[in-house]
Amino acid sequence: MNDINTYIKQNKNRFLEELIDLLKIPSISADPKYKSDVLEAAEIIKKRLEEAGVDHAEICETEGYPIVFAEKIIDRSLPTVLVYGHYDVQPADPIDLWSSGPFEPVIKKTDLHPEGAIFARGACDDKGQMYMHIKAFELMMNTKTLPCNVKFMIEGEEEVGSDSLEGFVQENHKKLAADVILISDTGMIANDIPSVTTGLRGLSYVEVEITGPNRDLHSGLYGGAVANPINILTQMIASLQDEQNKVTIPGFYDDVKELSEEERTEMAQAPFDLNAYKNALNLSDIHGEKGYSTMERNSIRPTLDVNGIWGGYTGEGAKTVIPSKAFAKISMRLVPGQDPDKITKLFIEHFKSIAPSSVKVEITPHHGGMPYVAPTNDTGFKAASMAMEETFGKKPVPVRSGGSIPIVALFEQELKIKSILLGFGLDSDAIHSPNEHFGLFNYFKGIETIPRFFKHFTDLKTKS
Amino acid sequence: MNDINTYIKQNKNRFLEELIDLLKIPSISADPKYKSDVLEAAEIIKKRLEEAGVDHAEICETEGYPIVFAEKIIDRSLPTVLVYGHYDVQPADPIDLWSSGPFEPVIKKTDLHPEGAIFARGACDDKGQMYMHIKAFELMMNTKTLPCNVKFMIEGEEEVGSDSLEGFVQENHKKLAADVILISDTGMIANDIPSVTTGLRGLSYVEVEITGPNRDLHSGLYGGAVANPINILTQMIASLQDEQNKVTIPGFYDDVKELSEEERTEMAQAPFDLNAYKNALNLSDIHGEKGYSTMERNSIRPTLDVNGIWGGYTGEGAKTVIPSKAFAKISMRLVPGQDPDKITKLFIEHFKSIAPSSVKVEITPHHGGMPYVAPTNDTGFKAASMAMEETFGKKPVPVRSGGSIPIVALFEQELKIKSILLGFGLDSDAIHSPNEHFGLFNYFKGIETIPRFFKHFTDLKTKS
Repeated sequence: MNDINTYIKQNKNRFLEELIDLLKIPSISADPKYKSDVLEAAEIIKKRLEEAGVDHAEICETEGYPIVFAEKIIDRSLPTVLVYGHYDVQPADPIDLWSSGPFEPVIKKTDLHPEGAIFARGACDDKGQMYMHIKAFELMMNTKTLPCNVKFMIEGEEEVGSDSLEGFVQENHKKLAADVILISDTGMIANDIPSVTTGLRGLSYVEVEITGPNRDLHSGLYGGAVANPINILTQMIASLQDEQNKVTIPGFYDDVKELSEEERTEMAQAPFDLNAYKNALNLSDIHGEKGYSTMERNSIRPTLDVNGIWGGYTGEGAKTVIPSKAFAKISMRLVPGQDPDKITKLFIEHFKSIAPSSVKVEITPHHGGMPYVAPTNDTGFKAASMAMEETFGKKPVPVRSGGSIPIVALFEQELKIKSILLGFGLDSDAIHSPNEHFGLFNYFKGIETIPRFFKHFTDLKTKS
Repeated sequence: MNDINTYIKQNKNRFLEELIDLLKIPSISADPKYKSDVLEAAEIIKKRLEEAGVDHAEICETEGYPIVFAEKIIDRSLPTVLVYGHYDVQPADPIDLWSSGPFEPVIKKTDLHPEGAIFARGACDDKGQMYMHIKAFELMMNTKTLPCNVKFMIEGEEEVGSDSLEGFVQENHKKLAADVILISDTGMIANDIPSVTTGLRGLSYVEVEITGPNRDLHSGLYGGAVANPINILTQMIASLQDEQNKVTIPGFYDDVKELSEEERTEMAQAPFDLNAYKNALNLSDIHGEKGYSTMERNSIRPTLDVNGIWGGYTGEGAKTVIPSKAFAKISMRLVPGQDPDKITKLFIEHFKSIAPSSVKVEITPHHGGMPYVAPTNDTGFKAASMAMEETFGKKPVPVRSGGSIPIVALFEQELKIKSILLGFGLDSDAIHSPNEHFGLFNYFKGIETIPRFFKHFTDLKTKS
């Protein structure tokens, strides 16, 4: 496999420049004002896939943003790998906390990335990781080492719930037929501790609006005599968790599949340095559900987090107002067994039930997603493990991640195909945050590992 | 006193046009970007006072915005009335809830103002009410009916705590010497129910900042394992009030002067229609401290209101972030007996004590103000009562207001002068809110009443 490293070395600068060009496009799917940018990103992905050597690539229109589909079929009797990724990114705010423009990629060195990292929104999630696959495919084509068929499905709505992808998958079972789905949209433990993600949390996400009086009021003239929607909202949200940081919504934990003591013990073996974790985030103390470790809290336990809250006067100085309305965005991460639709319903019922009669409550559900657990004894996982070991010189650790890729559960349900979560980002890469970045080491290691996965997967499949 | 009505009739349009010109200036003291506008408003007030006939007017520089001082001394042996008002206004946001520009005054009819009302930020608080005094003074000068000396002290920092006025008052005892202070910065019960304000609540105002992790985090990867500063902030704020809506800060009620049963019974006689109150604000139910009526809750009881809250993602759609920080602006209205400095200190100590070890807390006090009670048996109140009765044809009701004019307590302490709170606004005038307005009826009734106050006050004083 010397071909791989030689090809990467010869094309390193171009691989980087192409990614930088892609990162310059503010393809923010959550905000309609970036619509033309999101569409431009889709066009560029199609073009790059064509240049890399697919048989054909197409922009598949949907009710939302399009899905880029492409394929290279070398022999219908050989296995097929379906690569999934997304070209849309999270909003960049708070903008003022970025040390460089979110869509002006720059390469800077960091403690964890001494070789440099690309700083830009989407550098890691998921343009950088998705683009590794296009470059790995180009590599296999140009070195004539592509061992099997490959399909690409790159969407533009991952950050807003993949609404259109759902219908696309339901209507295109044949087009998407494959033996395994390969996704790089997760992370690894550290650059010297390779890992493969074997579980993902699900998601329920709602927006709540509390209305008190029908207009903003002077807090002197009305204070004490009318329901202040902010005070009420804080009381309602606070009551959603008890003193042990358990969620108080009735039925919330009913379907949670608890891990056995054996599984928890095995999990506790994964390398984790609590002090390094606290120091990296400058946490004065850890915080979470009583009875569980930090690693368990952010992977195998469900959560309830307020992702945004606003109401009243938020400018400089003091304004003595009782606002008419207060708002919050609240998300719950779910674990295997929990159904996002059921949890959203439980949330809505409970949240309405705890509102005092002095306010009105509106709740809007945003996208949700099913939790997922990948098997560690099938061909896909074995191939991933062998590929990682070859690249990094040590066996990867299987880990459950706290994040969600809601569509993974849908792939399994609709297409009956398991997904392999082969991620190369680090938790510290600040995805969804200001100063998101992706290590150059990680980008090139990804491009190096993917052809190895293809080879091992094909070998294992055709031998079996 | 037929002179009064004739003069007002002859000059009605000009009185209105001059006020409209003043309202066009966005003299928002809380926001530094309006600095030149605030200064322009001061210059115009000085000019208008000169035109109205003062002996001299001056712009008194301070560390903040200047104070406009002017006087007309007709005879040092006669009484002196010191008029206080302010030319600064509250911020106008939320701008999108205004039906016309906050600094583009328009006259529109409303249910409570069938003769029309001027809609603009500051129309009632306090440009409109302050300008009544300048026009009433002009009227007395031009009709040769000014019965005593008059001084004007018009400041530009009332909406941000009157910081500079405090020093000005302390250093200018002689300049400000007077027999009574006359202020129109409060309201009356209704256009057919005149009232005089006899009490004001004090104010303690703080801004709190909660910091969890040192950067925004992905709620999937970290959710459940780190302190979410928004969740923590809601818990901390919620705990500041108990189920009876009493404030839980230790010592908060220690100095509250409770009213006697007799006083409460008397207070309950004031005209108040709970259904009309609820309908006007579209309240599904009233809300407040157990054991007290709505009228008591917003006047003789202290409060704790969140005036603003923010943190995390507040844009369109869904972003799965755990923010690094969350913020709130919290104010407490205080009643006689309570000291704002002491209450601010109690708040800070308590709020820090309830923070979990997983977050950091910063608290910044904004301006505060002492509560105030006016006597109802002295010359000033009697003169105000007689003047109101002459204008409205019925005796005014003495009322305790829930609002605060912190400087009133300082006037009493420093200058040993009582203030008469002769307000003409209505609670429904939406001061501090979008669509603030001031009835034309109220504006002209104010100009009509003020000269009557001057006459009765001088008569009572010189007779006694």
